[in-house]
Amino acid sequence: MKTIDLPKIQQIVKQFAEERDWDKFHSVKNLSMALTVESSELMEIFQWLTEDESNRAHLDPKLKTKIEDEVADVFIYLLRIVGKTDMDLEQAILNKMQKNIEKYPVDKARGNSKKYTDL
Amino acid sequence: MKTIDLPKIQQIVKQFAEERDWDKFHSVKNLSMALTVESSELMEIFQWLTEDESNRAHLDPKLKTKIEDEVADVFIYLLRIVGKTDMDLEQAILNKMQKNIEKYPVDKARGNSKKYTDL
Amino acid sequence: MKTIDLPKIQQIVKQFAEERDWDKFHSVKNLSMALTVESSELMEIFQWLTEDESNRAHLDPKLKTKIEDEVADVFIYLLRIVGKTDMDLEQAILNKMQKNIEKYPVDKARGNSKKYTDL
Amino acid sequence: MKTIDLPKIQQIVKQFAEERDWDKFHSVKNLSMALTVESSELMEIFQWLTEDESNRAHLDPKLKTKIEDEVADVFIYLLRIVGKTDMDLEQAILNKMQKNIEKYPVDKARGNSKKYTDL
Repeated sequence: MKTIDLPKIQQIVKQFAEERDWDKFHSVKNLSMALTVESSELMEIFQWLTEDESNRAHLDPKLKTKIEDEVADVFIYLLRIVGKTDMDLEQAILNKMQKNIEKYPVDKARGNSKKYTDL
Repeated sequence: MKTIDLPKIQQIVKQFAEERDWDKFHSVKNLSMALTVESSELMEIFQWLTEDESNRAHLDPKLKTKIEDEVADVFIYLLRIVGKTDMDLEQAILNKMQKNIEKYPVDKARGNSKKYTDL
Repeated sequence: MKTIDLPKIQQIVKQFAEERDWDKFHSVKNLSMALTVESSELMEIFQWLTEDESNRAHLDPKLKTKIEDEVADVFIYLLRIVGKTDMDLEQAILNKMQKNIEKYPVDKARGNSKKYTDL
Repeated sequence: MKTIDLPKIQQIVKQFAEERDWDKFHSVKNLSMALTVESSELMEIFQWLTEDESNRAHLDPKLKTKIEDEVADVFIYLLRIVGKTDMDLEQAILNKMQKNIEKYPVDKARGNSKKYTDL
């Protein structure tokens, strides 16, 4: 995976909202709703497909574009939330991965998908 | 916003899944469900708050950690989907922003939140 | 609120799926995805509205129809899930309300929206 | 499927909210968020299961109770939204089913899961 120029992307997204005077709609509450709506639209692409079909969906160029557009929408709203909550995104991810590693020890979690509360 | 080391993060996330033999659960369909579940958990933090309260929620250290953990979970599943669909994430975002700019011309969209189909 | 003829509605919904040979797509997993997608589409109507505006949205006839259509879609998929899991829906609701009454005692929950785990 | 006494259920749900002075939190916007959160919690039960496993999940008594509790929560918030938008629920469902019948003619939709816009 290539890296991405996050500050540049965030600047484009921010400017887009400001030019349209949309910042007034972008409370963290509303952005979290938009994030879930876009996640659901991504999921809708796969809802009647088998798991195998979902793994191959991106091989169809038309579906690939749909998937990319919805992933981009999710990413865009996520960046807006990050920007409005003074978050160090990389640190937040590393912290959460550390918690996951502790909640799901390899010997207990290996090969099963139970929630940590049921391990 | 600082940039993030996306290839490093993705490597950590991938290794975490492989060590637990969880790759078999991670079809694109299932990952899109997990993405929506995590988005909803982020949204749940704000569901009974006013918009103003949601904008200040991260000032409470306990809530800040909850927000960061849920944003991280969304990000992690999004990266998994990106990794499984041969996507150039930065290009996907730039393409989608270009479509948004065309769908929402500044003069029509300024200050209103109507969907482009209603503009 | 008027009551509804649930067995009649369920029969219509079931026949609709059978005539289209859609039962094969309607695993409980897939139906739970469709339920969330439809809930999100309902939520999308309100995402950029203030709470006050959301309370008055149904006074606009065009929005009222949109709200009714999305509520109906949620209801339809919920009925499908009920039909496939041998559930006594009324009893399930009464059981859950009893749990809610115990989790949220009036004297502690009154006027605040904290989750029961924080009460 | 047995019918349910909808007016009785709605009365119980309404009284529960009033006794806790929660009506002030229950704008249609917030209720639509809660509806999606609960739908997602239902979906979470099935996210790592195969479709076959999801169809048999309710045979496990512990999972059956979890499914029933989450279906009940979705139903409860849906009823709250119906109650706040002056909706005739049965008529709304019948209207939407009529639209579905027209959007998905049997001869075109039979055995395939394409969205009506792609038929």
